[in-house]
Amino acid sequence: KLKLSLAQLEKGGYDTFMLKEIFEQPSTLRDCLRGRIVDNCSRVVLSGVELNKERFMKAERITLVACGTSWHAALIGKRLIQDFCQIPVEVEYASEFRYGNPVLNEKDIVISISQSGETADTLAAIQLAREKGAFVYGICNVVGASIPRNTDSGTYIHVGPEIGVASTKAFTGQVTVLTLLALSVGQLRGTIDNETLHNILVSLDKMPETIKEALKVDDEVKKLSKIFAYAHNFLYLGRGYNYPTALEGALKLKEISYIHAEGYPAAEMKHGPIALIDHEMPSVIIAPSDSLYDKIISNVQQVKSRGGAVVAIVSEGNQAMNDIADFCIEIPEVPECLTPIVASIPLQLLAYYIAVNKGKDVDQPRNLAKSVTVE
Amino acid sequence: KLKLSLAQLEKGGYDTFMLKEIFEQPSTLRDCLRGRIVDNCSRVVLSGVELNKERFMKAERITLVACGTSWHAALIGKRLIQDFCQIPVEVEYASEFRYGNPVLNEKDIVISISQSGETADTLAAIQLAREKGAFVYGICNVVGASIPRNTDSGTYIHVGPEIGVASTKAFTGQVTVLTLLALSVGQLRGTIDNETLHNILVSLDKMPETIKEALKVDDEVKKLSKIFAYAHNFLYLGRGYNYPTALEGALKLKEISYIHAEGYPAAEMKHGPIALIDHEMPSVIIAPSDSLYDKIISNVQQVKSRGGAVVAIVSEGNQAMNDIADFCIEIPEVPECLTPIVASIPLQLLAYYIAVNKGKDVDQPRNLAKSVTVE
Repeated sequence: KLKLSLAQLEKGGYDTFMLKEIFEQPSTLRDCLRGRIVDNCSRVVLSGVELNKERFMKAERITLVACGTSWHAALIGKRLIQDFCQIPVEVEYASEFRYGNPVLNEKDIVISISQSGETADTLAAIQLAREKGAFVYGICNVVGASIPRNTDSGTYIHVGPEIGVASTKAFTGQVTVLTLLALSVGQLRGTIDNETLHNILVSLDKMPETIKEALKVDDEVKKLSKIFAYAHNFLYLGRGYNYPTALEGALKLKEISYIHAEGYPAAEMKHGPIALIDHEMPSVIIAPSDSLYDKIISNVQQVKSRGGAVVAIVSEGNQAMNDIADFCIEIPEVPECLTPIVASIPLQLLAYYIAVNKGKDVDQPRNLAKSVTVE
Repeated sequence: KLKLSLAQLEKGGYDTFMLKEIFEQPSTLRDCLRGRIVDNCSRVVLSGVELNKERFMKAERITLVACGTSWHAALIGKRLIQDFCQIPVEVEYASEFRYGNPVLNEKDIVISISQSGETADTLAAIQLAREKGAFVYGICNVVGASIPRNTDSGTYIHVGPEIGVASTKAFTGQVTVLTLLALSVGQLRGTIDNETLHNILVSLDKMPETIKEALKVDDEVKKLSKIFAYAHNFLYLGRGYNYPTALEGALKLKEISYIHAEGYPAAEMKHGPIALIDHEMPSVIIAPSDSLYDKIISNVQQVKSRGGAVVAIVSEGNQAMNDIADFCIEIPEVPECLTPIVASIPLQLLAYYIAVNKGKDVDQPRNLAKSVTVE
């Protein structure tokens, strides 16, 4: 007798939508990238940029507005755009931006990011920005939603419907589109050299396989999650490209396990949060082998010397961190600007298994709605 | 027989330096304001601005860089400058800014904020900014420190030596100077009308008396602090001008009580943190009678409906909040842009008494240094 319910079928054999969505990221990123990297990885084509070349050429400032997980993607977008387009970028919470008397004119571009395209605060923010004459660009998942209908142009992330309340594949899709956007505008403005562009595009094009590789830590993270049954609080630390990754990792844990996890730029820890560190407060530190690796090693040592347990997310083959951190999780090596996408995988799995161990309903966490359509 | 030690004498009769510094804010703010509000509260004189009129007139963007408590003051500064000068403002963590490939030119002003004037990351940030041609302004307490010696101009906050590791009087001094700066640049650029300027200056001039009034909640907050002996976690929420106040209130509690307190812009709560709320997780909500009061009332209701206790910081005479929040602490009414200074007082006291109840050394919290002179 066949006993599969529709819901089980939709979960594709996984226990939850969230786990399914974590594991389908190789294919959702393939969909997200399709047709956008061309000419043997030498050029990016984003129609939203191509059709508005003038606007992007004369842009004097870009403001990214978003809420929640999308706001974390925006913080990564800031770094990408500054690095590859040499345009100053500001990131704003949509709810603060709309009441914050923002200074905008027709040389401003406002990029709004929302999975659902219905987030009330983000919608209100873009209406305000358009009234002030800014060019408004939307990055959204749901086709035909309110945000794409109310922006001047935009790009869909095309990762398919996201059912789990805690965003996973939409986040990696948003960061991927922001990367494509920064590279596309950079090639337009001539602020990125061909070799750098090519190297990043080769890696980005392979991202689906890289994520498949990254997902192999599943069993290891599942085991590790059991060790942290004691923890009621967590710190997540990262620097540069991975400071937002730390915020997002902490938010995942908050959302589905109800553990109070907080993200910080690692160097800010000394200005207060380090007082919290003791043997009951573990830290998750994102430390790939990038330009800030040496700096973050010293942050790890500071945490260890105060008795806190450390889980480090490191590049594959890193031996040195093994001697300092309590646990290391390896991720495939990619160019620095792509590390947030890859580092997100173990963080999603860690939050997931800790919540499952605690018996929480990960697909429908208490108090939360999938898209926040009220103020 | 006289048994007063030098340390006791220096504490001026208070148990700790921190409590002394909280209570001396009426006089430190008087020192901070001295000579800077002139002509019957119709004009601001800040020599750092007066001597560099051209720079402030042609400024196309201002970037505020700081760490820790000073970074919270910077977030308030952003709102002040946007509101009164119509210049776009960005706020950056010094540690992220210096490695973040910032886009700067000679039309940029970078304002660095540091109590000690020796914060390593902030110093490195301003060196980078000067190399890129920006005009660098310093807001600092310690006269002759490295930051004032390495900036193009600046303003001292003049609040006297701060000994307690957790900053109190330096924070209110920084916000006061940022207010004076925004008003001064606004009057220069003609972006603030005389009536608004006069009204704010009258209130600012009376701030020492207002703070004296605000400090009268001391006993009430002391009693209230005992109720929260159960709490291992706190959320601090605010909107607009008081979103940074919430971050700062949370940081005070973290630093000296080692309770995991986290600040959020109130509207962001729905995008994740609200999952944490239950009867074990109290919230402190800053809700003066300002333009966002109605919005924040709905945030308070959301927290209450999830079983969380709420302490609300409200304007004096507010009755409505009494029916919703569990506890209300009243602050004197001031113009919206000055509410962060006043609302900080009960938050400082709350953190202080909770830490004292737990038997912590508030002047020398574990793991923390007064000024962070290493990276």
